[in-house]
Amino acid sequence: MRVVDIIAKKKAGAALTEQEIRFVVTGFTQGEIPDYQMSALLMAICFCGMNRDEIFYLTDAMARSGRMADLRAVGGITVDKHSTGGVGDKTTLIAGPIAAACGVKIVKMSGRGLGFTGGTIDKLQAIPGFSTDLPEHTVLENVQKTNICVVSQSGDLVPADKKIYALRDVTATVDSIPLIAASIMSKKIASGCSCILLDVKTGSGAFMKTPQEALELARTMVELGGHAHRPTMALITNMDRPLGCAVGNALEVQEAVNTLRGAGPEDLLTLCVELAANMMVLARMGELKDCRAQAEAAVSSGAALAVFRQMIALQGGDARIADDPSLLGTAAHSCELLAPQDGFVSHIDTALCGTAAMMTGAGRETKEAGIDYQAGLLLHKKPGEPVKQGECVATLYANDQAKLAAAKEALCSAYLYTSKPAHSQPLLYARVSDAGTEWLHEE
Amino acid sequence: MRVVDIIAKKKAGAALTEQEIRFVVTGFTQGEIPDYQMSALLMAICFCGMNRDEIFYLTDAMARSGRMADLRAVGGITVDKHSTGGVGDKTTLIAGPIAAACGVKIVKMSGRGLGFTGGTIDKLQAIPGFSTDLPEHTVLENVQKTNICVVSQSGDLVPADKKIYALRDVTATVDSIPLIAASIMSKKIASGCSCILLDVKTGSGAFMKTPQEALELARTMVELGGHAHRPTMALITNMDRPLGCAVGNALEVQEAVNTLRGAGPEDLLTLCVELAANMMVLARMGELKDCRAQAEAAVSSGAALAVFRQMIALQGGDARIADDPSLLGTAAHSCELLAPQDGFVSHIDTALCGTAAMMTGAGRETKEAGIDYQAGLLLHKKPGEPVKQGECVATLYANDQAKLAAAKEALCSAYLYTSKPAHSQPLLYARVSDAGTEWLHEE
Repeated sequence: MRVVDIIAKKKAGAALTEQEIRFVVTGFTQGEIPDYQMSALLMAICFCGMNRDEIFYLTDAMARSGRMADLRAVGGITVDKHSTGGVGDKTTLIAGPIAAACGVKIVKMSGRGLGFTGGTIDKLQAIPGFSTDLPEHTVLENVQKTNICVVSQSGDLVPADKKIYALRDVTATVDSIPLIAASIMSKKIASGCSCILLDVKTGSGAFMKTPQEALELARTMVELGGHAHRPTMALITNMDRPLGCAVGNALEVQEAVNTLRGAGPEDLLTLCVELAANMMVLARMGELKDCRAQAEAAVSSGAALAVFRQMIALQGGDARIADDPSLLGTAAHSCELLAPQDGFVSHIDTALCGTAAMMTGAGRETKEAGIDYQAGLLLHKKPGEPVKQGECVATLYANDQAKLAAAKEALCSAYLYTSKPAHSQPLLYARVSDAGTEWLHEE
Repeated sequence: MRVVDIIAKKKAGAALTEQEIRFVVTGFTQGEIPDYQMSALLMAICFCGMNRDEIFYLTDAMARSGRMADLRAVGGITVDKHSTGGVGDKTTLIAGPIAAACGVKIVKMSGRGLGFTGGTIDKLQAIPGFSTDLPEHTVLENVQKTNICVVSQSGDLVPADKKIYALRDVTATVDSIPLIAASIMSKKIASGCSCILLDVKTGSGAFMKTPQEALELARTMVELGGHAHRPTMALITNMDRPLGCAVGNALEVQEAVNTLRGAGPEDLLTLCVELAANMMVLARMGELKDCRAQAEAAVSSGAALAVFRQMIALQGGDARIADDPSLLGTAAHSCELLAPQDGFVSHIDTALCGTAAMMTGAGRETKEAGIDYQAGLLLHKKPGEPVKQGECVATLYANDQAKLAAAKEALCSAYLYTSKPAHSQPLLYARVSDAGTEWLHEE
């Protein structure tokens, strides 16, 4: 079997065989197939796509490229949750404790974030003392104690994905649904949970710009989960506007605490309750409607916040932040963005808003870059809200004053205004399971 | 400027700027841009193509990536000739001496062949003592003495092409008209001749499978030549059947000698006269019709053979082969392919015929492989010719007996027969110049 023939076959639009796909993934992971042949194949895949069988073989070969985590010792159904990423997405810190408080066993292995803001791991590391590098037996013990543990994915899982993703990142081959689906699902499968809930974001702040693209990705991943005997569901949710009001690591932890206290932004609470309820459905804890009611009750009773507090303590963090988020610290510098006119916020360009957050120091441009945990944005006005000229619409925070001005300029361009109230957008578009797609809001 | 952005731009179907193209070619040649980014970009070019401006900038940047040969000391118009390659293509050895005998000054810098049979350089090296590595001043002296010199392209010309071609070869990115045109024309421009005649082959034994594809490549290259102030013309010629009867290095030199004596196959002589006449037109020696008559006269007078004899002598070869080709030596082993039925040869699968020649040892599969100069095929029967059952249609030659059987099997599959005479194909399809395309045979 020659790699050049496999590239030529894909380039001609033909489907690769299971044997060819395993040959490529194994050879590339072991360093026998050079980067330049892999990047040519990845580009051909971007243009020609892959059918469902090909994507399944790719996912399976990637998942098996390293160690597979074994979570059977937890007992019963374990649930993992994954978001395709967006601006202000701190849902794991909220939906995770809610579902755990309702009895769902959650083990989440997360990656570090690259781009706008940190990933879940970075957000948790904004909590003083919090450790995300735990040995597997500690993960299992913690789940037995409090139903949830969120850790960094260990280095020996899915080496194929690490190598392929690094190459995609520098060869403009990231935006391919087969490659995105295989990357996400190979990690989820290797992480060992028995069920997976996916939050597929769509809109200006997401990879998938339209609900239709998001639906294709969601359906592909749900099918891949089923193939691998890991029941999988997906929610397609709005990322055409930032989620909640906080963007930045410590700021988002603070917002998560507020939300778990029932005092967070409405969009964020609604989405987190929905995510938690769907995790409960995956864990066979009842009908969605009943699960939703239980999830809401876990917030109002304080049970979800108690889980979050215990999870922080079990992972070595300062659990007092669950009662006094000011212990997360405040950035040395801040500045305000003011509305230039009377009217309404019509739109926030979410990608640009994310860039502004990154410019404050809240995200990393390169893998090696550090993160300023206290940096970020608080959006006081979101699309649809009325503003007065000179009113503060957002506050920017950074420990490096020089970064604030550039970030403010970017955020200023992200905010658009109108004189009339804008059309409001749905928060949830659809729910995809092996039973099919349920549209929650028609597009 | 970031390479990943340039790849993404091309992938999205946009045209690259002159600055972007020069940045990529220079960076890649100097080793600053890694192979894996270049191969991703090449694959994106295969899918999205390039417009005329992009191809021109690419060609120019590649041509300028190393030393540019300076042939002005020759004086007057110098003509280069290039064939896109095929099976049994020894036209340079015939059309070159004919045109030189008519007064055209020809400097041809050739590459080594990879694939079916050797390139022109390999064919010439089948002549005992012949040197294709000459210093530039010797090239100029030889052209002043006998109007023609054929040498290997020196290593310091177009390093960009060498590096890009090596990468295309292993990443299935060879078959792109912009990349083929830029590769050929950058070499021709750097080689320093003032005019260029291209022989663009089409058919089962050529890269371009249809006359329309060949026409697109030809038009692109003629335009590139004009852009670079190197008047360029192209003939689109048939490679749906092998050219002449000999395939293999010494065998082709022998056939070239026979043809220069007026005793060669008719298709080969006709094409070589046409190529020589067009080289004369490029050298402004008159109308095509008059040039054709002069070219024919140069063969019948023996003047063309005399030039070939002198060229061999000036390049250190045994010039006696021009009178006694048996001095080229004969392979130790041979075998015959017999017709399985009465009837007519309907078709010879030219690519398969080339593969059979390579299997005898006449061509190289890898750059490092050696060549068996005496190995190859003599096709006694060509498409359209009548055969009797058991009649010899071809003879295979090799110095390694084990190779003959496999080669015979391949050649056997290449020959197809019918009971009725087959439709004959044109030898010349079209002539492309800056004045436009002249169809010589409608397809």
